[in-house]
Amino acid sequence: MASGCSELESAIEVLVRNFYVYAEKKGKQDKMNKKEFRKMVTQELQHVLTNTQNKEAANKLIQSLDADEDGKISFDEYWTLIGEIAKKLSMQMAMQCQERP
Amino acid sequence: MASGCSELESAIEVLVRNFYVYAEKKGKQDKMNKKEFRKMVTQELQHVLTNTQNKEAANKLIQSLDADEDGKISFDEYWTLIGEIAKKLSMQMAMQCQERP
Repeated sequence: MASGCSELESAIEVLVRNFYVYAEKKGKQDKMNKKEFRKMVTQELQHVLTNTQNKEAANKLIQSLDADEDGKISFDEYWTLIGEIAKKLSMQMAMQCQERP
Repeated sequence: MASGCSELESAIEVLVRNFYVYAEKKGKQDKMNKKEFRKMVTQELQHVLTNTQNKEAANKLIQSLDADEDGKISFDEYWTLIGEIAKKLSMQMAMQCQERP
């Protein structure tokens, strides 16, 4: 992305780059295997997700995201997770807006 | 969000907070009206979208995003735009991965 990007554009780039940082570690470069996904959840999403250290919980999360059931997480499936986290956060912020005088 | 968040968590927060910064300016606090949306696109997405200064192009974009046709942009509709931008960026990054030796 061009330098001088807005904070919003840089944030989108962080989200996209994060996927490839973990997907590229082993095997197919455009998909995260289970181990890469668990590592990403543990290292990057420990404040917004619960049970991130729990292997079983992480595997359940993978199963719920793995729409094409290939045992790996594609960018689209990763983006579904990010969207769920964002929507949860947006509901919290919407409530804060309403509570303000 | 708790301090000490990961870069990924902070990036998600930037994306969510950005919606409310613009949605809250006038009228309903959890929806962007057309003017607020055009301002957000012009100020925040000028490197990743084309024609951001063009009112007609922005109105077409609103029309394509406005799933419930209420003339406003909800968080979900905003998130669809962010997802489209992220997926375009992810395809560029996927190609860069493949070009690497």
